[in-house]
Amino acid sequence: MKTPAPKPKKVVLAYSGGLDTSIIITWLKENYGCEVIAMIGDVGQQEDLEAARKKALATGASSAYVEDLREEFIRDYIWPTLRAGAVYEHTYLLGTSMARPVLGKRQAELALQLGADGVSHGCTGKGNDQVRFELAYKAIAPNLQIIAPWREWDIDSREDAIAYAEKHTVSPEKAPDKAEEVEIGFEAGTPVWVNGTKLGPIELLNLLNEIAARHGVGRTDLVENRLVGMKSRGAYETPGGTLLVTAHRELERLTVDRETAHLQQTLAVRYAELVYNGVWFSTQRQALDGFFNVSQQRVTGSVGLKLWKGTHNVTSRKSPFSLYRADLASFTMGRYNPKDAEGFINLFALPVTVRPKAKAEGNS
Amino acid sequence: MKTPAPKPKKVVLAYSGGLDTSIIITWLKENYGCEVIAMIGDVGQQEDLEAARKKALATGASSAYVEDLREEFIRDYIWPTLRAGAVYEHTYLLGTSMARPVLGKRQAELALQLGADGVSHGCTGKGNDQVRFELAYKAIAPNLQIIAPWREWDIDSREDAIAYAEKHTVSPEKAPDKAEEVEIGFEAGTPVWVNGTKLGPIELLNLLNEIAARHGVGRTDLVENRLVGMKSRGAYETPGGTLLVTAHRELERLTVDRETAHLQQTLAVRYAELVYNGVWFSTQRQALDGFFNVSQQRVTGSVGLKLWKGTHNVTSRKSPFSLYRADLASFTMGRYNPKDAEGFINLFALPVTVRPKAKAEGNS
Amino acid sequence: MKTPAPKPKKVVLAYSGGLDTSIIITWLKENYGCEVIAMIGDVGQQEDLEAARKKALATGASSAYVEDLREEFIRDYIWPTLRAGAVYEHTYLLGTSMARPVLGKRQAELALQLGADGVSHGCTGKGNDQVRFELAYKAIAPNLQIIAPWREWDIDSREDAIAYAEKHTVSPEKAPDKAEEVEIGFEAGTPVWVNGTKLGPIELLNLLNEIAARHGVGRTDLVENRLVGMKSRGAYETPGGTLLVTAHRELERLTVDRETAHLQQTLAVRYAELVYNGVWFSTQRQALDGFFNVSQQRVTGSVGLKLWKGTHNVTSRKSPFSLYRADLASFTMGRYNPKDAEGFINLFALPVTVRPKAKAEGNS
Amino acid sequence: MKTPAPKPKKVVLAYSGGLDTSIIITWLKENYGCEVIAMIGDVGQQEDLEAARKKALATGASSAYVEDLREEFIRDYIWPTLRAGAVYEHTYLLGTSMARPVLGKRQAELALQLGADGVSHGCTGKGNDQVRFELAYKAIAPNLQIIAPWREWDIDSREDAIAYAEKHTVSPEKAPDKAEEVEIGFEAGTPVWVNGTKLGPIELLNLLNEIAARHGVGRTDLVENRLVGMKSRGAYETPGGTLLVTAHRELERLTVDRETAHLQQTLAVRYAELVYNGVWFSTQRQALDGFFNVSQQRVTGSVGLKLWKGTHNVTSRKSPFSLYRADLASFTMGRYNPKDAEGFINLFALPVTVRPKAKAEGNS
Repeated sequence: MKTPAPKPKKVVLAYSGGLDTSIIITWLKENYGCEVIAMIGDVGQQEDLEAARKKALATGASSAYVEDLREEFIRDYIWPTLRAGAVYEHTYLLGTSMARPVLGKRQAELALQLGADGVSHGCTGKGNDQVRFELAYKAIAPNLQIIAPWREWDIDSREDAIAYAEKHTVSPEKAPDKAEEVEIGFEAGTPVWVNGTKLGPIELLNLLNEIAARHGVGRTDLVENRLVGMKSRGAYETPGGTLLVTAHRELERLTVDRETAHLQQTLAVRYAELVYNGVWFSTQRQALDGFFNVSQQRVTGSVGLKLWKGTHNVTSRKSPFSLYRADLASFTMGRYNPKDAEGFINLFALPVTVRPKAKAEGNS
Repeated sequence: MKTPAPKPKKVVLAYSGGLDTSIIITWLKENYGCEVIAMIGDVGQQEDLEAARKKALATGASSAYVEDLREEFIRDYIWPTLRAGAVYEHTYLLGTSMARPVLGKRQAELALQLGADGVSHGCTGKGNDQVRFELAYKAIAPNLQIIAPWREWDIDSREDAIAYAEKHTVSPEKAPDKAEEVEIGFEAGTPVWVNGTKLGPIELLNLLNEIAARHGVGRTDLVENRLVGMKSRGAYETPGGTLLVTAHRELERLTVDRETAHLQQTLAVRYAELVYNGVWFSTQRQALDGFFNVSQQRVTGSVGLKLWKGTHNVTSRKSPFSLYRADLASFTMGRYNPKDAEGFINLFALPVTVRPKAKAEGNS
Repeated sequence: MKTPAPKPKKVVLAYSGGLDTSIIITWLKENYGCEVIAMIGDVGQQEDLEAARKKALATGASSAYVEDLREEFIRDYIWPTLRAGAVYEHTYLLGTSMARPVLGKRQAELALQLGADGVSHGCTGKGNDQVRFELAYKAIAPNLQIIAPWREWDIDSREDAIAYAEKHTVSPEKAPDKAEEVEIGFEAGTPVWVNGTKLGPIELLNLLNEIAARHGVGRTDLVENRLVGMKSRGAYETPGGTLLVTAHRELERLTVDRETAHLQQTLAVRYAELVYNGVWFSTQRQALDGFFNVSQQRVTGSVGLKLWKGTHNVTSRKSPFSLYRADLASFTMGRYNPKDAEGFINLFALPVTVRPKAKAEGNS
Repeated sequence: MKTPAPKPKKVVLAYSGGLDTSIIITWLKENYGCEVIAMIGDVGQQEDLEAARKKALATGASSAYVEDLREEFIRDYIWPTLRAGAVYEHTYLLGTSMARPVLGKRQAELALQLGADGVSHGCTGKGNDQVRFELAYKAIAPNLQIIAPWREWDIDSREDAIAYAEKHTVSPEKAPDKAEEVEIGFEAGTPVWVNGTKLGPIELLNLLNEIAARHGVGRTDLVENRLVGMKSRGAYETPGGTLLVTAHRELERLTVDRETAHLQQTLAVRYAELVYNGVWFSTQRQALDGFFNVSQQRVTGSVGLKLWKGTHNVTSRKSPFSLYRADLASFTMGRYNPKDAEGFINLFALPVTVRPKAKAEGNS
């Protein structure tokens, strides 16, 4: 029989500054008589985090930390997911999904560092985020006690992601009449410059967010399959991410050979599931990164995009490692001999034509 | 040692009416002294096929047949590919790829029927179409001799698909300022009505082509991996098909459970490869249809789309078999208990947390 | 907040006759004051089921049913799994996994039929069987209340499968010195005769179990990954099943073309996961059956096996639909021309040699 | 029109010492008037290679090289394939398939080094080996001219692999009555010791070959699907390899988590196809190695096997990184709480039970 876990004495809470996590501070203190430390993670949400920090203290937190996770988030979570071409169910770019592990990881590290014995978050019991946070806690600091008050209260379901939507992006109808071009440069699958200017990850993503939002690019509204078994509606805004996924995919068309590209397509489906399900800290994800690190080595070059009224179309693709060779068409010597196609077709067809052939000959 | 094949006496030629296949008629007669029968297949290309028929006769064909393959093409080739969600390399909707097997099959059948001993086509040796035609011939009538003069001449590469492009579709910039809504109804994954009116396959696809073209929807320009090993640039126009793929996918989000949906996504990649490579007449394709026939049984309902300036966005999704239940959020009794999530997470996390846990306890 | 479920008044229990499920009868009556109906399912376990029935009544069941599920079990569960080539983690032939859905389904049907409002089983909280039973209940009669007392008691983990092992099969060392041959005939992937005699499913499987057991074939001992997240050790005996899987696979080598065969291999991994995890009643499994129903259509013929000291080796393979043609080697006309290989290799190699070629020429 | 390639002046021939490649020396000199250099690759075939060298010179080669590729072959080709768990069509351990790329690579390197302008091999036009050799040439030295005389002669098909069979291995019936145990130790998926003694790759594989052959382990006879489209019969002997594949797989069961293991199983199918098809020098294979390098990091430990009369059964499995924990069963605190299973099942079942539930409630 399982003994009930002892009540935690010191809890690190993933604090947002909103009402939902503010309530938790009071509740934890009342119910457990424990000390509560608020952690506010900066993953680029562009809110007033200093105000949140003050609010946490005012609401009863013994201390409150603002953790700048922006660069780590982009470099170690967004870029690998981009390189993997991972998009959940064709459409969802996994923004929130990737943010949870980096927040949960930092929260668990902080707990270890401060000698806390518990961690807490404000996710409800119907969403994916609870899973993503808790898998991170369990991976980094498996002995911490996890307290998820909103799972117990279950007042109302509310997927955080929905709240994000329709906030920043201009609607396509109101976008400027004049198109805008942007060129994005990659090295080994990682974006490194925009319009000729080399930029750090934060600046690069901010700039692309700004440009894409201006033209109403990157809004999506869908029905998705949650890990916890139900379907839900989500509305997402990922303006800069949308440009990056398109540009990256176009550059891959140029630089990755067919068989590798097709295998990548299948593995990207798996990668997206892992990220969506919060299984970030796992051998499987690391091994897939091992694959993509190799397959992306020559995904270097740039892609131009034209943004207009909610659309973004490719205008150029360039790479020093391009496998597209116009000369393959005209210059045949030693390279492409159309006569080879006859032999190719005969053998390619063999497995599916043994049977009709045998039939035509009257046996089988 | 292989004996050279005897010269064919009667050849059925896939005839387009263009210069490239007209030349073949003369060449076949001169080189083989054989009778040439022209077959003009109507797969909805909306050209003057009667004129082509007359031209074939004038150029030396002993007879010329116009075969109306439109309904068969849509019903037996396009609809199954749509149900499978097959899109090649994320983008190409496989229009030309699907047309080749239906043409090649009819051509081979005609040859058998007329007692011909050869078939011929006008594809070059660098493209995919030669493979698609010849796999169809070999599947239906494996004893026919195949003559592919353009593969031997190899004057210049020219992918038929490219010629199709930028012909019918209004450019997004010139599309009307006023958006248009269209609603498409499906039964078991097959489109059956538009805007409330039940339509046969030909009328349905024509109508959607017209509507989508008006708004500049469905043009694409890409670098793709050909079966014969090289990369090529292609420009495609599939206005109606684009609407259908989006609507179908959206309806699936509502009606197909998560695990089936994710498996479909992987199998669609395979299906697209098969169709692209011309491996239509194969056990593998038939077996995949066996899968999709079951998985699509409840993909019934309708999806509304708003078309504007080259974009098309989902405005409604309806299905009597919807698995999306808003009530799963509020009505918990016997259905969804958020407390279950705790147990779920603990077990879901177990495989990836045995190791950190063991580590934290100091063993391994 | 979830209201506690009302206490059930009439419960159908999956009853084995052992101490573990006997205890449940008393416990259910004491704790719920409910009527308990015992269901004993015959899935070929060759125990005294009539004695079990009497014991159930003596222990307090209001009634007890022995349900003969043998033919349904083999025909609708074992044969499809065999056709799919599904083997969990390379080795486990899924015997117990397949038995649970057929038992759970009948139990739920019986409950509906008798107006019961609850079902119960004796599986512990650490194994896979609880999941398999409960998924069947939920699929067939989702409103029934499920009571799993051993999950609550959690006295000791005990995977039923282990108990099965080392019971029937002769150890290889004690097997006869003389080898024995057996020939198994299939139609469309389903076994239909042994040594020339057509047999019903029950007789066929019994006979193969007997023959294989005599020679110590079909014992396995492994570490497997349970659905509930932990690894466990299992020992299994599937003498007849082992012969069937080998014979079926060999017949497929002869009759299924390469690409279909390789896709089958991948889908079999998925099918095995579904069966192992108890997800039998699902669109995904049905759709996979849709695939295999087609891909198995010509898996007709027979395979001979020689059994000796724990080994079983293939001695013959025959099929009217064999795709193996010795004549492909000698008779080349119109079929296989070795010169074709040159063209084939050139194009097959192209995607991976564009890069070295370009390099050798000094560009990129 | 393609200009015929100029006649090569200096050709490096993959020379076996047999009649088939000896004939080529004479033929090349007569037909091309070129110099012929023989390369005899030692990949552990245990033949008299010095005799072969002398024979090459006597037959007209201007020089002859014996290249010791044994260690490179095992370390860079066999070990990665073993780590990937790659087995073609369930059974074939890919011995010959792996040997071709290492031979072809060395041959191409030698050609570059000696200023040769051609390479030649003695494979026929119906087998896989021609593809494997030529893909290696094209990857390493794409400008060399390739001459494959046996493809042109096409006298008789003869798969080299068949010739290998039934040569070294004792038949199970004649194997000793006394069983023998062997323990194999691995580090990160690579075998490093046998029976407690650390061994280099050559010694290790030799020793295992000897032990397994003594007991009649590792013979196989099958119908396989060749890359060039036909089915063929093959008989293979891989005594040591058979032990290694089993031991490696067993160690993985202990040390690799479920999801990674299942993904490995699918990727191993792909890896086997690549190796079988000779696509060794490719981004895809390298990227898969990237995956396995990570996923194998903790496949460290040892496995004991008992060999007897053609069988080999696992007797022990040990690893410092074992994820199998007997304590997960008894020690529940903070680790495994059987009550969690209830919540797990409820959510795991949700996607497949929304529909029956809705049905039972009368909607849809």
